[in-house]
Amino acid sequence: MVNYRLFTPGPIEVTEDVLSECGKVFPYHRDPSFAEVVNKTTNNLKDILFTDSRVFFFTSSGTGGMEAAVANLFSEGDEVLITSVGKFGQRWREIADAYHLKVHYLRFDLGKSADPSMIAENLAKCPTIKAVLTTHTETSTGALNNVAEIGRIVRSRDRLFVLDAIAGLGADELRMDPWKVDVVIGGSQKAIGAPPGLSLVAVNERAWTAVSRSRLPKYYFNMQIAEKFRQKGFTPWTPAIPAMMALARSLDNIAQKGIDKVWEAHEKWATFFRKKALDLGFTFMPERPSNALSVIKFPEGVDTTEIICAVRDKEGILLANGQQELKGHLIRVGHMGHANEADTLRALEVLEKYALPKLKEGQ
Amino acid sequence: MVNYRLFTPGPIEVTEDVLSECGKVFPYHRDPSFAEVVNKTTNNLKDILFTDSRVFFFTSSGTGGMEAAVANLFSEGDEVLITSVGKFGQRWREIADAYHLKVHYLRFDLGKSADPSMIAENLAKCPTIKAVLTTHTETSTGALNNVAEIGRIVRSRDRLFVLDAIAGLGADELRMDPWKVDVVIGGSQKAIGAPPGLSLVAVNERAWTAVSRSRLPKYYFNMQIAEKFRQKGFTPWTPAIPAMMALARSLDNIAQKGIDKVWEAHEKWATFFRKKALDLGFTFMPERPSNALSVIKFPEGVDTTEIICAVRDKEGILLANGQQELKGHLIRVGHMGHANEADTLRALEVLEKYALPKLKEGQ
Repeated sequence: MVNYRLFTPGPIEVTEDVLSECGKVFPYHRDPSFAEVVNKTTNNLKDILFTDSRVFFFTSSGTGGMEAAVANLFSEGDEVLITSVGKFGQRWREIADAYHLKVHYLRFDLGKSADPSMIAENLAKCPTIKAVLTTHTETSTGALNNVAEIGRIVRSRDRLFVLDAIAGLGADELRMDPWKVDVVIGGSQKAIGAPPGLSLVAVNERAWTAVSRSRLPKYYFNMQIAEKFRQKGFTPWTPAIPAMMALARSLDNIAQKGIDKVWEAHEKWATFFRKKALDLGFTFMPERPSNALSVIKFPEGVDTTEIICAVRDKEGILLANGQQELKGHLIRVGHMGHANEADTLRALEVLEKYALPKLKEGQ
Repeated sequence: MVNYRLFTPGPIEVTEDVLSECGKVFPYHRDPSFAEVVNKTTNNLKDILFTDSRVFFFTSSGTGGMEAAVANLFSEGDEVLITSVGKFGQRWREIADAYHLKVHYLRFDLGKSADPSMIAENLAKCPTIKAVLTTHTETSTGALNNVAEIGRIVRSRDRLFVLDAIAGLGADELRMDPWKVDVVIGGSQKAIGAPPGLSLVAVNERAWTAVSRSRLPKYYFNMQIAEKFRQKGFTPWTPAIPAMMALARSLDNIAQKGIDKVWEAHEKWATFFRKKALDLGFTFMPERPSNALSVIKFPEGVDTTEIICAVRDKEGILLANGQQELKGHLIRVGHMGHANEADTLRALEVLEKYALPKLKEGQ
């Protein structure tokens, strides 16, 4: 088993104290001491998200959390507006299609962020659209959407705003209630600093009304079943207890630092990274970049797969490739878990050594 | 955080080597070294299950695996025969109802096992039933079903046989292909000895044909999406990597011992426990008991909740209560993870000290 350092945009390297929680003898999931852990974790998360919403934890990847949102909010044939700026916007569409929603699909070019005015236009034109589903941080391109502005527009039209914040949560500023987001989905393995295994879905009162009306089939992800257990600090089904203990620790760490400080660190080191990389001659894909990751694009003729393999094999560091049609054309570098000087310099160092010569050859 | 010894019938106490896998720096889920771990784990599991089936791992509880089976095998209105001998048979029904299947429900009294002849009768009477959904080990009552006999009947009528083997897998004999089971669902946190976080679903070729025809909505649990990744040793979504590393170790341990030896140990110590407990004056709920757990019933007037709390608070041991209408009337003792002399004697010791006096008072 080779263990590479993960500079991937999730799963991220977790700190020693968080990892060790995962390897401890774990409590029983029906014991009051576990409920205390869950309740404290919920409260930390609500503070970090700036919300009064109820929060559900599911043992699943972030995609499971996205499906939970769709399956609990809608009924067959409901109309939704999905904005997509990459692979994870497309995932919203695939889930909505699987559940036979009627999808209005607003797709922006790769590297762009969603244009809020086009969302406003679509909502004005189509009063039957019940909800807008979008992405906070699009991990496939590194683009950040203007959530505050989209939230203002969606609320002014009295629709629901459902946000996949899986990749950005903890790295990019997000204020759920002030920004008028009705449902936020997160994943444990991104900037909130825990191992993979849990998704979380925050649901405000406006969205909860929709939950009570939804007729889509669901059981494992059924929030009305989960709600009865949530009130006691439990989950209906046996959760990934070690992952929850680790998440409890990582959210406690963030709460103690203050989420503002954590955002600042991501902004500082992502900005530093991009400035230095630009100076070296690299260019970036997104126009409006997230602080969770940086996405470097390469010209035709450079195969980033080769660079990524060389960095892995010679330096023991995993960078991420482009996904789908972008495979071989991008290098994606995560700043989550690496928002510090030493790691940022290390990432720049391997890029200068392995990617820069290829870039110059390709130009 | 108080850590009790878990004599619960899952999640179980895992061994030190398995637990430590969970606390190690984890690999990236798209790295070939992780695929190797998954492939080896799959092969071990196929040996343990006596099957050539394809095996899917889902980051979820066992219930998620049950839902995956339903959502992937059927279409709305499909007829299924569900046999229930307790809470987990009822769970099949709840899932099938959620997906609008037409359910034929064969419910047996609590403590009984399913009567195979009644299954045969129902299948003969109703040729439109596509599948039989049942439970291997019913954790709520401790009853074991006669899977080999049910399998013979279901196959002879050319229907599908779907088995929730979550609680019994690793403790109670189960031979998937020889016993003609088409789909088996398991959970990581039971007798196969890993922490909670993963379910597994083994699907044979007969069932795979049904998967290709199913029209129920699904995405996270979609086996046709998962199949493309499975062939490379991956999962479509980021899995609970630490839980997978732990499961890899625990299945490796079982493979090295030999599953026959593991079954034997459970049979030996479960039988020993029940003999000694009977001698003390206890009586058991199931007629045909599983070796995964023993379920002791108490007369009206004894509140087992009090006993269980006393054992927890004074001895630091967690026993399990009855569930739903059986709460307060049962003590459930897990043998999974405790199929050895020391733990079996310890369980008997606390029962003699805390439960026996109450039993005698109540009689």
